[in-house]
Amino acid sequence: MARQAQIGVTGLAVMGRNLARNFARHGHTVAVHNRTATRTRELVAEFGHEGDFVPAESARDFVAALERPRRLVIMVKAGAPTDAVIDEFAPLLEPGDMIMDGGNAHFEDTRRREAALRERGLHFVGCGISGGEEGALLGPSIMPGGSAESYRALGPLLESISAKVDGEPCCAHIGPDGAGHFVKMVHNGIEYADMQLIAESYDLLRRVAGYAPDRIADIFRKWNTGRLDSYLIEITAEVLAHNDAATGGPFVDIVADRAEQKGTGRWTVQTALDLGVPVSGIAEAVFARSLSGHNELRAAARELPGPERPELHPDDAARFTENVEQALYASKIVAYAQGWHLIQAGSKEYGWDIDRASVAAIWRGGCIIRARFLDEIRAAYGGERAPVTLLADPGFAEALRAAQNAWRHVVATATELGVPAPGFSAALAYYDALRAGRLPASLVQGLRDYFGAHTYERTDRDGSFHTLWGDDRGERPA
Amino acid sequence: MARQAQIGVTGLAVMGRNLARNFARHGHTVAVHNRTATRTRELVAEFGHEGDFVPAESARDFVAALERPRRLVIMVKAGAPTDAVIDEFAPLLEPGDMIMDGGNAHFEDTRRREAALRERGLHFVGCGISGGEEGALLGPSIMPGGSAESYRALGPLLESISAKVDGEPCCAHIGPDGAGHFVKMVHNGIEYADMQLIAESYDLLRRVAGYAPDRIADIFRKWNTGRLDSYLIEITAEVLAHNDAATGGPFVDIVADRAEQKGTGRWTVQTALDLGVPVSGIAEAVFARSLSGHNELRAAARELPGPERPELHPDDAARFTENVEQALYASKIVAYAQGWHLIQAGSKEYGWDIDRASVAAIWRGGCIIRARFLDEIRAAYGGERAPVTLLADPGFAEALRAAQNAWRHVVATATELGVPAPGFSAALAYYDALRAGRLPASLVQGLRDYFGAHTYERTDRDGSFHTLWGDDRGERPA
Repeated sequence: MARQAQIGVTGLAVMGRNLARNFARHGHTVAVHNRTATRTRELVAEFGHEGDFVPAESARDFVAALERPRRLVIMVKAGAPTDAVIDEFAPLLEPGDMIMDGGNAHFEDTRRREAALRERGLHFVGCGISGGEEGALLGPSIMPGGSAESYRALGPLLESISAKVDGEPCCAHIGPDGAGHFVKMVHNGIEYADMQLIAESYDLLRRVAGYAPDRIADIFRKWNTGRLDSYLIEITAEVLAHNDAATGGPFVDIVADRAEQKGTGRWTVQTALDLGVPVSGIAEAVFARSLSGHNELRAAARELPGPERPELHPDDAARFTENVEQALYASKIVAYAQGWHLIQAGSKEYGWDIDRASVAAIWRGGCIIRARFLDEIRAAYGGERAPVTLLADPGFAEALRAAQNAWRHVVATATELGVPAPGFSAALAYYDALRAGRLPASLVQGLRDYFGAHTYERTDRDGSFHTLWGDDRGERPA
Repeated sequence: MARQAQIGVTGLAVMGRNLARNFARHGHTVAVHNRTATRTRELVAEFGHEGDFVPAESARDFVAALERPRRLVIMVKAGAPTDAVIDEFAPLLEPGDMIMDGGNAHFEDTRRREAALRERGLHFVGCGISGGEEGALLGPSIMPGGSAESYRALGPLLESISAKVDGEPCCAHIGPDGAGHFVKMVHNGIEYADMQLIAESYDLLRRVAGYAPDRIADIFRKWNTGRLDSYLIEITAEVLAHNDAATGGPFVDIVADRAEQKGTGRWTVQTALDLGVPVSGIAEAVFARSLSGHNELRAAARELPGPERPELHPDDAARFTENVEQALYASKIVAYAQGWHLIQAGSKEYGWDIDRASVAAIWRGGCIIRARFLDEIRAAYGGERAPVTLLADPGFAEALRAAQNAWRHVVATATELGVPAPGFSAALAYYDALRAGRLPASLVQGLRDYFGAHTYERTDRDGSFHTLWGDDRGERPA
């Protein structure tokens, strides 16, 4: 009888191949399959010594190679290719078998697929995997959704291949159906915001403090020893310190200033809009990337005037650098607060009951936003009473209190010197709006009542009201 | 033989009823129909003297009452109700007949419906109508999409009932299929941004300059005599000057500070994200509304510290007020620039060939954002060479040049005093980003290459490149 594999991976592009190798390197027998069999053969030829692979050339052989209940991982492009592979394999499976989608699917697609396969008695596990190619091989952060039953069967294998922090696996069951892909989407949205804030910090240190990239690399390196300690800060120092071989100049100066995107940041903002969650930090990051690519607009606007101000005095530059660290940290708290608000809203909307401390815990390793900071978020949500917003957690509130003057100074300076800092500004405006006793939303609502009879509520009694603006301006219950 | 109507309106809630009356008051014979016939009878009983109505109780009678080719206007709720009415009437129509949807449909739905009805030889005209109940009766701004052929038959009727400015109708053929509803959506998105900027101006005059609402009403009244002359500024003065009868205090103080929304602002931002157009001003306006409604978060954040600063000295307050006018005008230019960018992008994506001057022209009357300002936008796009962005139009560029110091001062002051001004800040950051010689998007792209091998372009030669970060850091063409 043929060997039986604990798990199978179909789709052997780099992510699938590395995930299969990771399973094999952790002692699991892994069935491997690809639409074109060459890739399957190449994998076994090149990496067969790393563990126990069972190559399969047909879908039928692949399914036959799996022990029951079958655990089948598909690693193909999101969208139609994923549906095609599901349609190919689902008829070959039996009730109780599991299909795990490890691609970057939209959580709504995952919900649809899960519901359809559930009707056929199959478990569908939409699973977020973060960490890129290297993470897939060496230990990613893993966010599986789907049924609790499927996690009992899949969880131990996924935990074994995930990143570990303090001995804990960076993998946990997120919640039913689309919860895993939803949380992965929010991870990526936060990643956009994080990178935008880092980019603004660099830009301010360059253009306001007047520092060269290698000096800024040193500053990031130093920041990485403190509360900002994180993968993105670490690699920012690496990128800024790198010199271009062709020109001998700073690498960051020869890279075209057009940032691309693959869509998960956009999805995050679109979903937040549907759920009524303000995620201005993520939105500004997505917009900053799209703006950077509009060459024609930028060329047309280049001659628009800015303020004429000198760089700072070196003494002021040093203090300004400290202020930028404060502004970055405070803005980062806001970005994460917005992200966790979105997780909370999604969890409520879809009935997922997501453990917000656990999300922080599994993002501490393996993924792009891994950071010391996430220990504090985990602690904030791990206590008896979860904070309504991260900003109100005592630890973060204290950090914001200590940072706010520096934060305001940095945003005001950027504003006056004409250096765009949309991420910092949006974060601070969110902070000031959320803590405001009264917002001018009352005027907005009054205007809506005036031109559209949309009614308003009152501060002093219950009910909805409309003022007869075109008449005697009397008020009527609506 | 029964009278033949030039046009028919089905769906006689307030918008449909007012539109039918508007047609009748302009001398057209109007067939009227409603699912429940009581409404039809009420309309004729109450307003029959205003013109020539042909009431119809059944769908069949309604269709029979229309001269050919038939012009049938449906005024029902967007979504499923619209599809239901289309499904009811389409089988009763003949090739060449027209169905116009005057509701607030999403332009993607309009595209779908237009394609489906075109296959059956029917014209489907998705038509944006702005101006609310009063506009529908007295003259709205009308934005019809659909075929040029349908506009030849429908246009004269629509133009006759539209608002007029300087004798010109506020109605023009926008472009094929969903173009009309798309442009109406952008209108509403701009309306969100406009109202948010007005709200921020009020908030700053209240909290920074220390003025009472009636004094601020006077300021808006004065602004309304200058370049800010517009319906929204006019009614802001009305709302701010209004006192609540029950308390005797300012109306704006008894209105709950939670702004609601019906969805078109959200659609605008979601569409802009799909099209890669940065519309930060509209996004911040949508987010500000949703933030205002999160009572629980606001309560939790209310004790977060702000700066302790006094109000301005009265002399400074007067100058600050002038600066706010500059900031409002400059931010408004940015909001409209973003809106027109979105129209341009949609037009290109869907092949609509939208005349951007014409859009400005038909928004000068009838709709919520009607303003003197739109004459200038029309002029900007009416010349031989359309500006790539409104910001680069010589007239607007000059206004921005003159305003920018005041604008920066207002944003910096709001930042330092802890008054949230997300609309002003986002607009200024957009301005500064668009005119920047270099953006830190280069660092973002460098980081993406580091952790995800996403490659980058170079400033000094063509092609895509990847640096082997984990290896010898050599560069390879990608």
